[in-house]
Amino acid sequence: MKATKLVVGLMSGTSLDGIDAALVEISGAGSETNVEVKHFISNPFPSEVRDVLLGVASGQLVSAGIISQLSVLLGRLYSQAVFQVCQEVRLPVHQLDLIGCHGQTIFHQPDPNPLCGHQITSTLQIGEAAVLAEETGVTTIADFRPSDMAVGGNGAPLIPFVDFVLFRDARLGRVLLNLGGIANITLMPPSCHITEVQAFDSGPGNIVTDALIRHFSQGNQQFDAEGHLARSGRTLSTVLDSLLSDPYFHRHPPKSAGREQFGDAFVKKLLTLAASATIEDLVCTATELTARTVAAAVLQSANSCIQLDQLVVSGGGVHNKHLMQRLKKLLPHVALVPINELGVHSDAKEALGFAILANETFELGTGNLPSVTGARHPVILGKVSYGKNYGKLRRRFQGRESRT
Amino acid sequence: MKATKLVVGLMSGTSLDGIDAALVEISGAGSETNVEVKHFISNPFPSEVRDVLLGVASGQLVSAGIISQLSVLLGRLYSQAVFQVCQEVRLPVHQLDLIGCHGQTIFHQPDPNPLCGHQITSTLQIGEAAVLAEETGVTTIADFRPSDMAVGGNGAPLIPFVDFVLFRDARLGRVLLNLGGIANITLMPPSCHITEVQAFDSGPGNIVTDALIRHFSQGNQQFDAEGHLARSGRTLSTVLDSLLSDPYFHRHPPKSAGREQFGDAFVKKLLTLAASATIEDLVCTATELTARTVAAAVLQSANSCIQLDQLVVSGGGVHNKHLMQRLKKLLPHVALVPINELGVHSDAKEALGFAILANETFELGTGNLPSVTGARHPVILGKVSYGKNYGKLRRRFQGRESRT
Repeated sequence: MKATKLVVGLMSGTSLDGIDAALVEISGAGSETNVEVKHFISNPFPSEVRDVLLGVASGQLVSAGIISQLSVLLGRLYSQAVFQVCQEVRLPVHQLDLIGCHGQTIFHQPDPNPLCGHQITSTLQIGEAAVLAEETGVTTIADFRPSDMAVGGNGAPLIPFVDFVLFRDARLGRVLLNLGGIANITLMPPSCHITEVQAFDSGPGNIVTDALIRHFSQGNQQFDAEGHLARSGRTLSTVLDSLLSDPYFHRHPPKSAGREQFGDAFVKKLLTLAASATIEDLVCTATELTARTVAAAVLQSANSCIQLDQLVVSGGGVHNKHLMQRLKKLLPHVALVPINELGVHSDAKEALGFAILANETFELGTGNLPSVTGARHPVILGKVSYGKNYGKLRRRFQGRESRT
Repeated sequence: MKATKLVVGLMSGTSLDGIDAALVEISGAGSETNVEVKHFISNPFPSEVRDVLLGVASGQLVSAGIISQLSVLLGRLYSQAVFQVCQEVRLPVHQLDLIGCHGQTIFHQPDPNPLCGHQITSTLQIGEAAVLAEETGVTTIADFRPSDMAVGGNGAPLIPFVDFVLFRDARLGRVLLNLGGIANITLMPPSCHITEVQAFDSGPGNIVTDALIRHFSQGNQQFDAEGHLARSGRTLSTVLDSLLSDPYFHRHPPKSAGREQFGDAFVKKLLTLAASATIEDLVCTATELTARTVAAAVLQSANSCIQLDQLVVSGGGVHNKHLMQRLKKLLPHVALVPINELGVHSDAKEALGFAILANETFELGTGNLPSVTGARHPVILGKVSYGKNYGKLRRRFQGRESRT
């Protein structure tokens, strides 16, 4: 009777880069969860699949059949990633206990919209879990977000539970900052209870600088590698002030942002405000916008959270040295720690997260944080597709159920 | 510790009539399943919802958002049906143990079709189970068909498992005949093993006569009530012979039919073959086509099945007295028994079926019949959304798991 489980977490994000798979050893559950990442891979989508996904996810009109077929195709690609992450460390797939699969979001609408006279919020992740469960033989938990929406939540973010499990500290107050396209923040006072976790999006992460660089390089460059451009420019302070007046930054959390707030329209506004500016100054200003809004959000929340010691940074923005320096300057009393130094590879974090969430569901624990998603109460997330390992798995962990 | 479960089965068929809900008391599992239907309701869809569903299900191009929103809306309507079927017998919903929900099929393609260079078979049922599990508090099992497709099956039919559970007899050989639009047949020799069950579609049930009647009444009449029209006509034997030469009737089972085989194109062919015929003769001939193809299928299969004593009839066609008489005549050695006489209301059968399939999944039994669906092996069907009753439910039935 081993007390640990081998779990593969699968993530494919809205950026449509591809599929991340993390092989994780997990023991315990809830705040007593212990994890060790054994291996991690990242597979880009075949370009044909990416193109179809991009169309469907951006609201293109398609038949139900395309979505149905695409879901099975994704299930197969996820399954391949599971085999690969296991093979690379010579682990037979049948030794896995669980798979946690986020799926591919092709629709997410947390604000009520009318349909046939009803007000509906909904979210749709595809990637057929039955295909994963059958091809791997491993019980697969997927479709985590609709459960939170069913209790009135936004269905996002779900990673703060993972942040709590991995990074809550007995003595240190921690801010988790993920600098993806959008900057996500999770705040945890020392030895906090799960209900004290706060999380929200402070605003842009790299989305604005990336868009500027693609614009000026005619698509030849994708991002400001290491922040060189930002460093060689200067902040256009009147432009920055104007951007900072955006109402998003003045709304109280919980709040979440996406392309609707900081996508093409926002960049166009910036380009209009600074029509004759150099690319360096524009990128420097956009980087400063990220740094200032992150810092303001952290400081404002910190006031209510008593004590914050570490800013644990993950996501692509970690490599932007200029941004890191600005954050250090703006948050002098908080130590800036790359997440890798705490034993979690930055790129693996979300895939790891869905391994942890799958474990939690199997253990009948709740995975959403109502303080973060706005849900009426915590719920067990996801749907379980039994693999042929399920009977054995359940007997192995049966004794532990009585506590639930 | 009670050994029985209270389960609601939910069915909404491709005819888009609405939602059937059966409240069922179930004990045991597999071939030892015992059921008692406590109540049954049938709710038509609101016409607005039906229209949207009809568009989506018939391949209309829509955004992923429409499918996502529609799935949540259906989840709410299913949930209402659960509350109603319980309220009408004054059962508090929290006393339910399980819900089994078929969902609404909006795509079903068991033949491989290409997508991004892959050959894909898939099926898509919507109706968000997380909404059902949350609104009722009851653990909900849904999405049964993709599991069978993931093991190479057609994802259909799934009801033969239910026929086996309900109607297999120690001494009698039984044919289950469901006369819906299409005629489905399940054959079970006396005290047969589950692997001996045969099931397939013999061809048209009422689909051709219904279409003729709608055509001649300009849509004012929907079907041949009690078979009066058929009785007052005569069979056009050359037309019948020509229809009987359709290759579908000469293919060996397993086979399944739908609008592709016996829809508008088939009716048009019939109208061309008998351009000057009266409606009575046409309906009589189409009814004869159903009777002959059912009888031939039963007799042909009976040869290999040794002994068939009863023909247990369900579906709308039961009310067609002329058709019933013709079947009696063509199958003189088989007693024709309306399913109601065996204690199951004809209209409740499929909803009851998904209560039984949900119970089977909960008990970790397999619900597909490879001999029927073409699957490589039996699998546990469906996906489980834990309701707030799950912890208690599992503890109640924990002891029984060791047998799996």
